[in-house]
Amino acid sequence: MSPLNHLANRFELHAVDGLARTGQLTTPHGVVRTPAFMPVGTAGAMKGVHWREVRDAGSDIVLGNTYHLMLRPGAERIAALGGLQHFTGWNGPMLTDSGGFQVMSLSQLRKVSESAVTFRSHIDGIKVELSPERSIEVQRLLGSDIAMQLDECVRLPAERSDIERAMRLSLRWAERSKRAFETAPSGYMLFGIVQGGDVPELRQASARGLVEIGFHGYAIGGLAVGEPQAVMLAMIEQTVPILPDDRPRYLMGVGTPGDLLEAVKRGIDMFDCVLPTRNGRHGVAYTRFGQVNLRNARHADDPRPLDETSPWPSTRNCSRAYLHHLVKSGETLGAMLLSEINIAYYQRLMAEISDAIGQGRFREFHERARIEWAQGDITPR
Amino acid sequence: MSPLNHLANRFELHAVDGLARTGQLTTPHGVVRTPAFMPVGTAGAMKGVHWREVRDAGSDIVLGNTYHLMLRPGAERIAALGGLQHFTGWNGPMLTDSGGFQVMSLSQLRKVSESAVTFRSHIDGIKVELSPERSIEVQRLLGSDIAMQLDECVRLPAERSDIERAMRLSLRWAERSKRAFETAPSGYMLFGIVQGGDVPELRQASARGLVEIGFHGYAIGGLAVGEPQAVMLAMIEQTVPILPDDRPRYLMGVGTPGDLLEAVKRGIDMFDCVLPTRNGRHGVAYTRFGQVNLRNARHADDPRPLDETSPWPSTRNCSRAYLHHLVKSGETLGAMLLSEINIAYYQRLMAEISDAIGQGRFREFHERARIEWAQGDITPR
Repeated sequence: MSPLNHLANRFELHAVDGLARTGQLTTPHGVVRTPAFMPVGTAGAMKGVHWREVRDAGSDIVLGNTYHLMLRPGAERIAALGGLQHFTGWNGPMLTDSGGFQVMSLSQLRKVSESAVTFRSHIDGIKVELSPERSIEVQRLLGSDIAMQLDECVRLPAERSDIERAMRLSLRWAERSKRAFETAPSGYMLFGIVQGGDVPELRQASARGLVEIGFHGYAIGGLAVGEPQAVMLAMIEQTVPILPDDRPRYLMGVGTPGDLLEAVKRGIDMFDCVLPTRNGRHGVAYTRFGQVNLRNARHADDPRPLDETSPWPSTRNCSRAYLHHLVKSGETLGAMLLSEINIAYYQRLMAEISDAIGQGRFREFHERARIEWAQGDITPR
Repeated sequence: MSPLNHLANRFELHAVDGLARTGQLTTPHGVVRTPAFMPVGTAGAMKGVHWREVRDAGSDIVLGNTYHLMLRPGAERIAALGGLQHFTGWNGPMLTDSGGFQVMSLSQLRKVSESAVTFRSHIDGIKVELSPERSIEVQRLLGSDIAMQLDECVRLPAERSDIERAMRLSLRWAERSKRAFETAPSGYMLFGIVQGGDVPELRQASARGLVEIGFHGYAIGGLAVGEPQAVMLAMIEQTVPILPDDRPRYLMGVGTPGDLLEAVKRGIDMFDCVLPTRNGRHGVAYTRFGQVNLRNARHADDPRPLDETSPWPSTRNCSRAYLHHLVKSGETLGAMLLSEINIAYYQRLMAEISDAIGQGRFREFHERARIEWAQGDITPR
């Protein structure tokens, strides 16, 4: 398939340090600095966080879930209301996944055929068919700046034959997705997704197939599904050399701050993950001291903030005692504060990584961050 | 009992229009403009609303619940952490109730004696004794700018003899509360609470008894417990003439915007209520068009905001379609937005009432607000 005019490259590399890179991706709704962490606003909302805080924390782009949005409030409705960016009031760049992953993890009675995946909605049980073409149509209706091809994810561990079958199907769906995307206006982007489980040759074959089809960017999917970090990093290492240097690389659904650091080191530019908000709702803060569990009684009388050097107001000002009280009392404000604190920490990490790459000292930053995390939290009072 | 030095008046009347008044109350943590609506931050947090939004919405003072805070995280702990204003990060004026109302409504196995009320905590079942003296001690530990005397509330309807017994006990507790408050530093305030159910003579006797003891301000308690609005207003009318003009009057636990308007008309200066946040969590918005239920399907495709003339950003900018979607999806952001929208509406109403009183056109404003509410929401599209 020959490169289409609207597959013009919107990514600009700024600095490279080893395999780590900084750059920027220009979307119809604004510029995204990379490496970029995309907080996940599943159903058109960030759980417990106002959009202005998502922005203020340093987020350039957020992710919306096609599966959720197509079921409720519906893609056609969102289109009529001006698209997802306007509908939500986020008004910035948005990437939508294809719906494939949630079909596998959330819906009932799913059936994968060559043409499409059929499932019953987890909300009302209605039968829905999602083909590569319909997924693109839905994402176009949502108005996402970056659409993802429909793919089939396989949970690991899995038989090689199952992994290969899903990978080949995903490649054929990639081609159909690209064809369906041909009519999209200039500036909007489509990413292909590398599959192949934990099998290096399959990852390579998938990456080669996708590059041959040609996309605005390339995602690595089907990881962060329970495999050890070493396996994930090995699969990145197998894949990245095959992907073109001038296109953004997106590691889907990853991960912890440590995962992000290691993946950037291996050439990844974009991430999305629910961890900052999900763990925030469970009383866990991410800081430069690693994970801090605010449920722990050690914080009950501690007037100190999580990190007095943080530029984020809540991280610097809210006492551990107050956060502990809110979490123990089940107050929504606890989840709200920890979710924004975590998003702010992820974005601060991205900014620091970016600065380090720009100054050619990524290796040094990488070592220091790991040491700080390993040292753990400040000494209890 | 003779007036104590620290019962010096901190309230200043600014304007009077009929019985309606504006003024200001100077507390150790800042000035409170009256009429004042106090949002309720039960356990040291406003449910679903950041403190900065509570402030930005126009709130000068908030209410904390002694019952909740003494059980968790504990009054002594909050004192050690610098008091409730500092602990929560609100850093503004706070009024605390006495704990009496929640003991009645939330705890188990309560027993009222002359000396104290004994109950089991709804959190861990531990037996707690709350006397008038301990309630004042707890509120002093919390550091509340305005403490309330311990009283006994009776649910209506009730026998006159029960109402009278509780009212007389509350008066004796008022005297003990005042004595316990004698050592409080200058600037901190103690309010007495008028009881007497729906019996005019008992309300009058209670008010007279409290004025004789002498307080910084006077609350009307035991209303908004299910009685018709007409009964509530009648009890206010029985009580207000007995209370000194130069002291603030606080109607506890009230109410809807309509309740507030009618109570101001009858001489009330302060209010607290959970309605803006509780109804916000249940998908209901308060606007100048009255109550709007965002669950209603009529909003699903409506791109219009709740009120395009509102000075509050979320009221003016968030579409009804988006709010409907958030509420239907159970997204926390829906509760967060509607709670702040409601607090902002209540505070806007207070500000408009205040302006109207200052300009001698309260009666006109009162009529116009009632007509607007009665006209209801804008026509569906």
